[in-house]
Amino acid sequence: MRYELYYWPGIPGRDEFVRLALEEAGVGYVDIAKDAGGEEAAIHKLQYVLDDTKAPHPPFAVPVLKAGDLLISQTANILMFLGAHNGLAPADEASRFWAHQLQLVIADWIVEIHDTHHPLGPTEYYEDQKAEARKRTGLFLKHRLPKYLGYFERVLKQNPAGDKFLVGDALTYPDLSLFQIIEGLRYAFPRAMAGSEAKHPGVMALHGCVSRRPRIAAYLASERRIPFNEDGLFRHYPELDT
Amino acid sequence: MRYELYYWPGIPGRDEFVRLALEEAGVGYVDIAKDAGGEEAAIHKLQYVLDDTKAPHPPFAVPVLKAGDLLISQTANILMFLGAHNGLAPADEASRFWAHQLQLVIADWIVEIHDTHHPLGPTEYYEDQKAEARKRTGLFLKHRLPKYLGYFERVLKQNPAGDKFLVGDALTYPDLSLFQIIEGLRYAFPRAMAGSEAKHPGVMALHGCVSRRPRIAAYLASERRIPFNEDGLFRHYPELDT
Repeated sequence: MRYELYYWPGIPGRDEFVRLALEEAGVGYVDIAKDAGGEEAAIHKLQYVLDDTKAPHPPFAVPVLKAGDLLISQTANILMFLGAHNGLAPADEASRFWAHQLQLVIADWIVEIHDTHHPLGPTEYYEDQKAEARKRTGLFLKHRLPKYLGYFERVLKQNPAGDKFLVGDALTYPDLSLFQIIEGLRYAFPRAMAGSEAKHPGVMALHGCVSRRPRIAAYLASERRIPFNEDGLFRHYPELDT
Repeated sequence: MRYELYYWPGIPGRDEFVRLALEEAGVGYVDIAKDAGGEEAAIHKLQYVLDDTKAPHPPFAVPVLKAGDLLISQTANILMFLGAHNGLAPADEASRFWAHQLQLVIADWIVEIHDTHHPLGPTEYYEDQKAEARKRTGLFLKHRLPKYLGYFERVLKQNPAGDKFLVGDALTYPDLSLFQIIEGLRYAFPRAMAGSEAKHPGVMALHGCVSRRPRIAAYLASERRIPFNEDGLFRHYPELDT
């Protein structure tokens, strides 16, 4: 099946969760953000997909995955689709719902991470909500970061098949997303993360395990990987990392 | 299959989206929040499900659905499960992913609605973030409410099977959730909604259609339906509805 990934050029956002799955699956894909025609051509193609008034399944936002004739949106939904078709999801029904449940917890976590720099919502710039961002980030680092990290540590510990992966004894798509969350948190909040990594050895071991997988390691070292920056989901504002 | 629904007693939150699906499916379920032993017994049972250190699939938060031996969490995940097992999801794969995609847009919308009264996150009371809530709600009502309503209006308009339902020509679980969103928005923001309903006739017609379904009408008139209140997801604070 031919895959095309649509996202804003140069922005490491929710697209990165999809790219990690495509790379680990080893399937080829067209990255529309890297269109040969440049950024303007990429944005033109993306806007067409978002605005098409004839599409039977119009997406609300990117990332969008085109898979043959299908247009799929919402990161967790794309990952469920890619997982099922490319060996990154468990086989039995109970485990499939469990993997997706973990992905949706990660989706909630992503929103909370986004809202550390955008507590008044996505319509205003960070520069126009800095005071509120400082308050929200303080509460996030104090209460929510340990809650989420502690939860995934517990999931690994309670996994009847061992603490190496989140679901069963093999890699599934939420493992890749948890890796990306840790990468992003280390970039955004190096001080806060330095103080909390030792308390979550299982999560950090899983992060390391994912980073060493041959296809992931090759991807991370390639030009296909977009470096974190302050247009993305994970932003490093030193004034927030207290 | 025996279903049990776990949620905080007396709080009309994400549990309501699950209850609407259970009621429309006409399947019996045990509502743990209404435990015969009273609220304390209900909370005790809920905490056990959240804190069980032996559970292979520990939930991050309620709502939780117990379905036989399975424990399922995350509202959209529960609805995907209930939909597939109770005739509230489409049959073919493409439509199943489409229905779930719409449910995940609704999940994002729910977070934004929650954050109108909790822009600094879930750890502080509304009373301690009123100034920020006023700012975030202003932006939500101006930009985000019309964006979401307009999107679902467009989904109905572009549905090749007609504009009566979101997916195909029959009711599926996202229709029930969209009904609940409109109910909640009317409660929380009566002034803002009065000004925008006429612009979204398809969404309002779908809301009316759901409200008249015999099982939904019976449920809404019953004591099983929890009235909206200021402990829930949709809160009416007149100072925010401008």
